[in-house]
Amino acid sequence: MAKSSKIGIVTDRIHDEYTRGPDVWSTFNPAVFPDCVNLGQGFMNWAPPAFIRESLQELSDKRVDVHHYSHPKGRPRLRKAIADHLSEQYRKPRDPSQDLVAGGSSSLPKQRKDVGAQLDPETEVQITSGANGAIYCATTAFLEPGDEVIFISPHFDQYQCEVTFMGAKPVPIALLPPKEVRGSKGSDWKLDWEKIEEAMKSPKCKAIIFNTPHNPVGKVYDDEEISRLASLCIKYDLLCIADEVYDILTFDSKPHLRIASYEGMWNRTITISSAGKAFAATGWRIGWAVGPPHLIKPVLVVSTRISFSTNSIAAEAAAVGVEEAAQRGFYQSQIQEYEARRGQLCSALDTLGLPYTLPEGAYFIMVDASAIQIPEDYPFPEDVQKHYRTAYFVAKEAKVVCIPATAFVSEEHVPMFEKWLRLSFCKDEEGREGGELEKGGKQLQALKKYIKA
Amino acid sequence: MAKSSKIGIVTDRIHDEYTRGPDVWSTFNPAVFPDCVNLGQGFMNWAPPAFIRESLQELSDKRVDVHHYSHPKGRPRLRKAIADHLSEQYRKPRDPSQDLVAGGSSSLPKQRKDVGAQLDPETEVQITSGANGAIYCATTAFLEPGDEVIFISPHFDQYQCEVTFMGAKPVPIALLPPKEVRGSKGSDWKLDWEKIEEAMKSPKCKAIIFNTPHNPVGKVYDDEEISRLASLCIKYDLLCIADEVYDILTFDSKPHLRIASYEGMWNRTITISSAGKAFAATGWRIGWAVGPPHLIKPVLVVSTRISFSTNSIAAEAAAVGVEEAAQRGFYQSQIQEYEARRGQLCSALDTLGLPYTLPEGAYFIMVDASAIQIPEDYPFPEDVQKHYRTAYFVAKEAKVVCIPATAFVSEEHVPMFEKWLRLSFCKDEEGREGGELEKGGKQLQALKKYIKA
Repeated sequence: MAKSSKIGIVTDRIHDEYTRGPDVWSTFNPAVFPDCVNLGQGFMNWAPPAFIRESLQELSDKRVDVHHYSHPKGRPRLRKAIADHLSEQYRKPRDPSQDLVAGGSSSLPKQRKDVGAQLDPETEVQITSGANGAIYCATTAFLEPGDEVIFISPHFDQYQCEVTFMGAKPVPIALLPPKEVRGSKGSDWKLDWEKIEEAMKSPKCKAIIFNTPHNPVGKVYDDEEISRLASLCIKYDLLCIADEVYDILTFDSKPHLRIASYEGMWNRTITISSAGKAFAATGWRIGWAVGPPHLIKPVLVVSTRISFSTNSIAAEAAAVGVEEAAQRGFYQSQIQEYEARRGQLCSALDTLGLPYTLPEGAYFIMVDASAIQIPEDYPFPEDVQKHYRTAYFVAKEAKVVCIPATAFVSEEHVPMFEKWLRLSFCKDEEGREGGELEKGGKQLQALKKYIKA
Repeated sequence: MAKSSKIGIVTDRIHDEYTRGPDVWSTFNPAVFPDCVNLGQGFMNWAPPAFIRESLQELSDKRVDVHHYSHPKGRPRLRKAIADHLSEQYRKPRDPSQDLVAGGSSSLPKQRKDVGAQLDPETEVQITSGANGAIYCATTAFLEPGDEVIFISPHFDQYQCEVTFMGAKPVPIALLPPKEVRGSKGSDWKLDWEKIEEAMKSPKCKAIIFNTPHNPVGKVYDDEEISRLASLCIKYDLLCIADEVYDILTFDSKPHLRIASYEGMWNRTITISSAGKAFAATGWRIGWAVGPPHLIKPVLVVSTRISFSTNSIAAEAAAVGVEEAAQRGFYQSQIQEYEARRGQLCSALDTLGLPYTLPEGAYFIMVDASAIQIPEDYPFPEDVQKHYRTAYFVAKEAKVVCIPATAFVSEEHVPMFEKWLRLSFCKDEEGREGGELEKGGKQLQALKKYIKA
């Protein structure tokens, strides 16, 4: 091809992502460290519950329609299941046009007491290719080039491109870590209200992506925080993309609060969740967006053109999951299992002596690794970036793969998060097949000799 | 919410699509015409072959990994299956840097005789969420706002937004229908070379989306046409997005020719296909893009951020399909079945007396409906657009849903295609479950009394 050819020149929108070096998932891939226990990427090493899996297999065997296109809105059965079983959580106002903050703009919005109206499966629920697909559709629908979008760092790494691919500008604002890590909880990480409001004041600020329960910190935002954030969204007229994929995973009876259920927020919030996290099916790629028709229809319009529809069998089986999970006590027993896993990994960290934040939700633990003393002459390969070195050292010495927290922040925040590692506990505990957590916990003790007294 | 609120205002990129009225798939939806035979949307009324379906069920039952994230490139087994079983079709040059047109720029490119090198499953094959997802990723990766993109109309309706969502401009160029429809074949529809070259001369012209076998016309482009088109792509330095989803469906032994296998084209072509069309699994959403690393890596970068990965179980089962289909004689017997279905629908049209184009590939028949005389006072609902009236009339009178060909053209071409209807024959023929084709063929005869002598 001629040297002057334009073939293969990528667009401005993807240029930065295209030219970036190997991402963290490639560097800390199980394939790179085949002899390691993988506490890195957040997927389970067990299958979805039998009642859902068996439904999937039976559907595949008995039905033709589950092998073919679904309606672009998503399969009716799944949309109906979400409306029937999850509606109360959103407390949708009975008259959305009257959804005002009681006491006027000087009061903080309260969570509506009313259980609310049922979601309309035709206009208020959209099935997407994973929660990821829902966020991508929302940004495509609502972000113009130049718009600014706030999110709280560390953050799910997909947010970055979901914003920049639209020509919009990410405005990451760091959570403030606890001063004393030992004994801290997710709730000890605090929002930086001053910086948040400063960012919202920009006339270009269009939206916030708000994630609770929070990955990777394990913070479950409380009523006071959500109320204050809601008041700011209202004050600055922002769209709220509420990433609540860990909604079914909060610990120690801490409630998950949906920002869409707060006064004044229903009309400006798209709430996103997924079957992947709820039913241990991260590879099914079934997510959903819930919100008012004026926000869901644009998501449908985009989803139709990006994906046309999602995988039909998985969506139909996910419907069975949503229909039956609560009644079977599945969510509750799943929480107990995760609490046990969390306990097992925390014990190993306690034995080792590394401080961490006890997560109140999701399935990650943020560990402060600053006490690990890496020998000065340790032979790091050249392509391991400086802020990935601790995680690399842990993989090499303890044979445990984890993810450096800097993978979830933008460049300006790297120094602030360099000492943190994210460990996943969505892995089997002792006595279960694989027993990755047990093995990982034991292997982590190999770091003991490198830890300062 | 305040009247001045910006919440719910959609982006410029989706504005036209958002404000457009109900689309053809909603108007001619089986739910709207529940008592009709559905020869509209192109999905099969049978399931994927048993050997693939059983693999899916067994994988779901026995394996954990198929329920979780796949690598963003796609599952290794599927990429390897494509490289192992389909490589020869692309005739990838052994030294792509030396892939020049023999005889220089004045000669027309020839299909390479050599079976070529094996595709590299790591860098030359990308698994996507359906073929649709592959096209969307390609346009996101390569189309800047203002770029012009040619496609041949009638066209798969998704192309339009896959271009406009990037701020790029669709340049549809109409196929020239045969002068005498009765007795015509797909090959009697001709490319308008003058208009094509005129469009390519524009300095903003970046790419062509080229679809063969062609939906909805059923044209399978021949060597002369592809060679000439390739020469123009080379002359004007265009990217070629080759939509070949019907690659396994050509009739009467007509060969499917891949434009990527022509001299000078490998380096500028992304070839797209899918398991949905190959294995009667349109709802699985498993597609793939094949091409040189400098075109596939950008597609990967986009796919990672839009979808992260595809549905894992379906991709693994599709791998079984690609591995075994040829050896089991599946493609060949599938072609024979479709030829029989085509024959059945053609017979019904012959009996009715409506002229049509005999398709050489894909599973649609373009029918010239101009002989149908609709009573002048026929009560059309107001929301049925003028150019959808014939299809509406057929649904009402014959109880057969088909799709007006104008759904596949842009506004400027509506008058040219108003008389055409698209009928699908990916429906069971006589004696098989459902027997939609048999029923549909009989019901079409109800139109007889409206047909001019």
